[in-house]
Amino acid sequence: MATLPPKIAMLIIGDEILSGKTQDSNLKTLAAKMGEKGYSLAEARVVPDSEEKIITSLVELKKEYKYVFTSGGIGPTHDDITSLAVAKACSVNLELNKEADRILSNHYANLKLEYNDARKKMAMIPKGADLIYNKISKAPGFKIENIFVLAGIPAIFTDMLEEIVQNIEYGVKMYSECIVIEGFTEGEIAKNLQAVQNHFKEKVTIGSYPSFPKKNDKGKHFIEIVLRGVNQEEITKCKREIEEILTRN
Amino acid sequence: MATLPPKIAMLIIGDEILSGKTQDSNLKTLAAKMGEKGYSLAEARVVPDSEEKIITSLVELKKEYKYVFTSGGIGPTHDDITSLAVAKACSVNLELNKEADRILSNHYANLKLEYNDARKKMAMIPKGADLIYNKISKAPGFKIENIFVLAGIPAIFTDMLEEIVQNIEYGVKMYSECIVIEGFTEGEIAKNLQAVQNHFKEKVTIGSYPSFPKKNDKGKHFIEIVLRGVNQEEITKCKREIEEILTRN
Repeated sequence: MATLPPKIAMLIIGDEILSGKTQDSNLKTLAAKMGEKGYSLAEARVVPDSEEKIITSLVELKKEYKYVFTSGGIGPTHDDITSLAVAKACSVNLELNKEADRILSNHYANLKLEYNDARKKMAMIPKGADLIYNKISKAPGFKIENIFVLAGIPAIFTDMLEEIVQNIEYGVKMYSECIVIEGFTEGEIAKNLQAVQNHFKEKVTIGSYPSFPKKNDKGKHFIEIVLRGVNQEEITKCKREIEEILTRN
Repeated sequence: MATLPPKIAMLIIGDEILSGKTQDSNLKTLAAKMGEKGYSLAEARVVPDSEEKIITSLVELKKEYKYVFTSGGIGPTHDDITSLAVAKACSVNLELNKEADRILSNHYANLKLEYNDARKKMAMIPKGADLIYNKISKAPGFKIENIFVLAGIPAIFTDMLEEIVQNIEYGVKMYSECIVIEGFTEGEIAKNLQAVQNHFKEKVTIGSYPSFPKKNDKGKHFIEIVLRGVNQEEITKCKREIEEILTRN
């Protein structure tokens, strides 16, 4: 097993995110769930419903990262072009996936809704891909090469991701601790924090997250220091060192 | 003036976004504010506090898009490396900016806080850059080449952006309308919507955004159709065409 968490990337697909109409929440879900499995989300991109842009981004990301997760664009409408773009990025054809076709035709029969061409489009899956099931809308996502293709609707994204994390091997076990500091500003502790970070280099990552005080509330800064790493002992040592510094400050 | 909105990109910088600790909200703010000024946010990337990753992303984005907006990483701590990375991406040096130095030293004198090295770091700005002021924490952002460098804290990001949009020329004037549909599912209207989109090609962009019904609530789908374009007349025509289709369906 690796000693550093393998890096993964996310490709968020959809004009509605870039226009500001919809707030993405899937990144957070992915970071948390895959973080627990010992992977580190190292890059995310948001691209429009553009075949060219999806393909060029995927080709770059799938080469650079252990896994790529996409969200969005696998529904029935004309702007849902993710499956085709993924197929092209992997140089395979889209084909009617028999299992997906069976699931969807049963689903719409149960709902007494027509299984029309637009809906059948959701059973068109890149050749050789493995399906990712979803209990909500039934339309499956899929995995091909190192790419997981998931729905954009948060409930469905989460449902599909649950299935994935149950089956994926651990990247590396990760630990984290948090120190909450009141009464200091970032500027006051920055130099000492830098010294601690230098000391622990890649063993522990130290993040400093200020909550900025509102007007006329000058003194009440509040800083969260988050320590992350693969070695609990190093994190404990690092935490102790920071606490000592704060006492001296 | 261009007939299509010039494309802009966003680079969101910060481990805390990729770890899922912090939910980005600046993308939405940028899309909305720059959308009103006739620009289209065409891509966003989220990268960690990694000098190399910031530089490679910026070099790509500043070449491909009219403007690039960054958020995050211009504070006083060791993980704030955006200014240095931007300087390197633009092949210039960081230098003590006299105006920024004056603003910050006055600010900390007023607060009766020490203007120490960590805080002085915030006055280190790429050579040749123009400052972007902020009324909240005073530490300025800056513009260099076609890159706007803004703070990550949402209130400060918004404050800096307000200054930018007041001074930037219009990209192109944009219009949008929304149709809310109940009683249909996306699958039922997809084919007809595709026909309308084909008819209006690049004149109007039609987005279809379903709100997915909860379990045991089968019939209650709800779809928002959003029409966007630079020509109000075309949008009105397009809207009429969709409404006719829905009446026929």
